[in-house]
Amino acid sequence: MDNDDKKKINGFSRKTKAERRAWLVEYFLQPDQDRELRRFDAADNGLQAVIDNFSENTIANFPMPFGVAPNFLVNGRTYAVPMVIEESSVVAAASAAAKYWMTRGGFHAEVIAAEKLGQLHFRWNGRPERRAALLTDLCTRVRAQTAELTARMEARGGGVRGLTWKHLPEVAPDCYQLLVRFGTADSMGANFINTVLEAYGQELERWAATCPALEADERELEVIMAILSNHTPNCIVKAWVSCPIEAMNIPGSTVDAADFARRFQYAVDIARQDPYRAVTHNKGIMNGVDAVVLATGNDFRAIEAATHAFAAQDGQYRGLSRCRIDHDVFHFELTLPLALGTVGGLTKLHPLANVALDILDRPSAEELMCVMAAAGLAQNFAALRSLVTTGIQKGHMKMHLQNILSSFNATPQERASTQAHFHGKTVSHHGVRAFIEGIRK
Amino acid sequence: MDNDDKKKINGFSRKTKAERRAWLVEYFLQPDQDRELRRFDAADNGLQAVIDNFSENTIANFPMPFGVAPNFLVNGRTYAVPMVIEESSVVAAASAAAKYWMTRGGFHAEVIAAEKLGQLHFRWNGRPERRAALLTDLCTRVRAQTAELTARMEARGGGVRGLTWKHLPEVAPDCYQLLVRFGTADSMGANFINTVLEAYGQELERWAATCPALEADERELEVIMAILSNHTPNCIVKAWVSCPIEAMNIPGSTVDAADFARRFQYAVDIARQDPYRAVTHNKGIMNGVDAVVLATGNDFRAIEAATHAFAAQDGQYRGLSRCRIDHDVFHFELTLPLALGTVGGLTKLHPLANVALDILDRPSAEELMCVMAAAGLAQNFAALRSLVTTGIQKGHMKMHLQNILSSFNATPQERASTQAHFHGKTVSHHGVRAFIEGIRK
Repeated sequence: MDNDDKKKINGFSRKTKAERRAWLVEYFLQPDQDRELRRFDAADNGLQAVIDNFSENTIANFPMPFGVAPNFLVNGRTYAVPMVIEESSVVAAASAAAKYWMTRGGFHAEVIAAEKLGQLHFRWNGRPERRAALLTDLCTRVRAQTAELTARMEARGGGVRGLTWKHLPEVAPDCYQLLVRFGTADSMGANFINTVLEAYGQELERWAATCPALEADERELEVIMAILSNHTPNCIVKAWVSCPIEAMNIPGSTVDAADFARRFQYAVDIARQDPYRAVTHNKGIMNGVDAVVLATGNDFRAIEAATHAFAAQDGQYRGLSRCRIDHDVFHFELTLPLALGTVGGLTKLHPLANVALDILDRPSAEELMCVMAAAGLAQNFAALRSLVTTGIQKGHMKMHLQNILSSFNATPQERASTQAHFHGKTVSHHGVRAFIEGIRK
Repeated sequence: MDNDDKKKINGFSRKTKAERRAWLVEYFLQPDQDRELRRFDAADNGLQAVIDNFSENTIANFPMPFGVAPNFLVNGRTYAVPMVIEESSVVAAASAAAKYWMTRGGFHAEVIAAEKLGQLHFRWNGRPERRAALLTDLCTRVRAQTAELTARMEARGGGVRGLTWKHLPEVAPDCYQLLVRFGTADSMGANFINTVLEAYGQELERWAATCPALEADERELEVIMAILSNHTPNCIVKAWVSCPIEAMNIPGSTVDAADFARRFQYAVDIARQDPYRAVTHNKGIMNGVDAVVLATGNDFRAIEAATHAFAAQDGQYRGLSRCRIDHDVFHFELTLPLALGTVGGLTKLHPLANVALDILDRPSAEELMCVMAAAGLAQNFAALRSLVTTGIQKGHMKMHLQNILSSFNATPQERASTQAHFHGKTVSHHGVRAFIEGIRK
C-alpha cells in the first residue's frame, strides 16, 4: 500500500469525533492540530450533539461571526437585524445604511406572492394532446392520495394550490412534468413538498395502470424523479426606500446630494444593462441577504440559486435593484425571490438561529422576507454609496489592515501605530509586514 | 419616546460585546439568553478577537458543523475534503459518491482558464469610434501608474493581462467601461484588483485632462466606479467521472446498472432543458461546492453569483452538468467558474479555514478549484442517484427524524424506539411528537 492508499478509509462515519480527529492528525495534519479542532467545541455535550446532528462526519464547530445591524426601520417597525457573515464591512455597511434611511422614512417592503413549486418528472407513452382531457381525473386521484398529509398544512394556511402538466419534447418525446404549486405557510416546506410529490409519483404509476380513460398503449409510465424546485419566481418580495433628493446628503462628506443621487442612479443603470457589473451588484445584495439567511437557519444555497436565476429570467442577467429620480424624489427598490421558513428545519434547532429569530421577535415567513429584502437593499445602497463616492477600497482597507494585523499578532499599541501610519495610504500585506518589522526592531 | 423608538441606538459599534449583548437582552431578548450567546465563545481572548475582527458588531460565534468527506480520489490523489455546511445529508452524500467513484477511476479535473476581471465605469463626452486610436496611450499610462503595485503580483505569476474599452450606449450615450483582465495567482485577488482599478480611475481623469490627442470637447470625463467583477466566465474548471455502464451497479441495491445509467442521464438532460429543474439541480451542486468554499475561507456569495450567471449565459438558465452514454461507457461532467484563493483573505486568518487548507495539504488555487469541482460533481451524482432510485426523502427523512428528536431532547433510548417505529414510514414533526409523547406517558 503506497502512502496515498493509506489515506483511504472505511467506516469513517461510524467513528467517534475523537477517532476522526485522530485519523486526520495521523494522515493529514500535525500532531498539535487536534487542539485547534477542539478549540470551539461546546462545553455542554448535549448542546454539541445538537450541532453534530445537523450534518455528518463532524470534526469541529466552524465559528462564523454573528453580528447585529441595529436601527433597521422596516414598515414602521425598528429591528436589530441578526447577521452571520465572515466578510468584513458587510455588517458595518448594513448598519450605516439602516441608520441613513431611519431618518429618511425607513424601508418599506411588501410580499408580492409566496408560492413554492415542486416537480414530478416522468416518461409516458401517451399522446401529449390527451393531457387536458386526463388532467382532472389525475388531479383528483393524486390529491386524494395525499389528503392526510396536506390537511395539516391546510390548517396552517398552506397546501397544494394547483398543478400543470407540461410536455418537455426537447428532452425526449416521452418526457413530461407535473409542476405543482404549494403554499407552505411559515415553513420553508421542503420536506412537505417532497413527501407530497413522492406520494404523487406512486399514485401516478397506479393511475397509469388503472385509469379507464387510457388506451392500452398509453399505460407505460415511468416516474423519473420527484422534488421541490428551488426556482421560486412566484415567492417574491419588494423593498424600497424613497426621499427628496435634497435630503440625500452624506453625513461627514462634502459630496453634493443631487450629484450623489445622479451618480448612484447611473451606477444602478449600469448594473441593469451590463452582466459583468450585474453579477457583482447582485453579489453585494446577497452579502446582506445571506447574512440574515444564515443567522435565521435558512438555506443560502436555495436563496442564491433562486435569486440569480430570477436575475437572468428575461434572457439577460441583470442587476436586481432599480433606481429612478422623479420630480426630485429619489426612489430605490429591490425585488427578489425569497423562499424562507421561520418554523421547521434549523430555525428552532440551531441554538443561535433560535436566538436570531427571537431578536426579530419570532417573525412570520412573510415578515422575515420583508426584513431580509430590506437588508439586501441596505447592503446594495451602502456598496453603491461607497463606490460612487469614496471608492470601495477606503472602507475595505481599514478592515483589511485589521486582519493583516491579526495575522502578525499585533499588540494594541502596534495596531495604533500601524493604523496611524497607513491612514490614507494603500494597505498591502507586504507593506504592513515591513512596517511592523520596523517597529519591532 | 414610544417603545419602538427605544430600540434605536447610537454608537452600537463602539460598544463592547458585553454591552451589545446587554442591549439586546434589554430590548429584544429574555434575560437568560445572554448565556446562550456566550455558549460558543472561544476560551482564549486573543483567538476570540481574531474571529471578531472578521466582521463588525459581533455578539457571538455562530457554530457551523465542520465535517470531512474522505476517499476523494481527484487526479490520482486521495483527499479528505473539509466541508462546512448546516444542511443534513450533504457531507454523507459527498462521502458516498467519493467512495463510489474511488473504485471506478476517481474524479478527473482540469483548470481550463484562471482569469479574473475588473471594471472601471466612467462618463466621457468623446466620440466612441476614437477608442481604438486612444487605447494604446491610455493603457501605457494606467499601467505605468500601477507598476509598483503589479510588480509584486507579477513575481507571483499574476498581474494585469489586458484591457478592453467598451461603450455602453444602452445605459447612456456617454457611458464607458474599461474591462480589465487579471491573473491573481493563488489569491482571490479582490484587494489587488480593486486597488489597481482605483489607481486606473485616478490616472484616467489625469489622462483626460492632459492627453495631447484629445480635442478640447473630449476632456470631460467622470469616473463613476471601479471594482472587480464577480462574473468570472474565464476562470473555469471542469471535473468528470467515467466508467463502463456494466460497472454502474449500486451497492446494496437491486437496481440494474444500465437502467440506473439511463434514468440518470434522463434526469441530467431534464436539468439542461427545464429552468425550474435546472435551478434545483445546480443548487445541489452548490451544496458540495459551498461547503468547501466555507471550509477554506473563500467567499460563497462570489462563487454563487458567478456560477448561476454562468448557468444562464446562453440566454436560458441551464443545469451545469452533462451526462452521455457512449459505446456503453458512462460519462458525467461539470464545468463551472470558481474564482478562489488559497492565500490571503480569511484562508490563513480563520483558524479552522487554516486547518481545512492543511487537511488539503496547502493546495494552490488551481488545485483547490479541481477538488471543489469534484465535490460539486460528487454532490450532483449523489443527489441524482437518490432521486432516480429510492427518492430523495428516504435519506432526508432519516436526518429529519434525528433533528426532530433533538428538538424533543430525546434520550438515546427514545431515539432508538422512535427510529424503529418510523422505519419505512413518513416522518413528520406532528407524528414524532405524538409517538414520543406516547412512550413518555
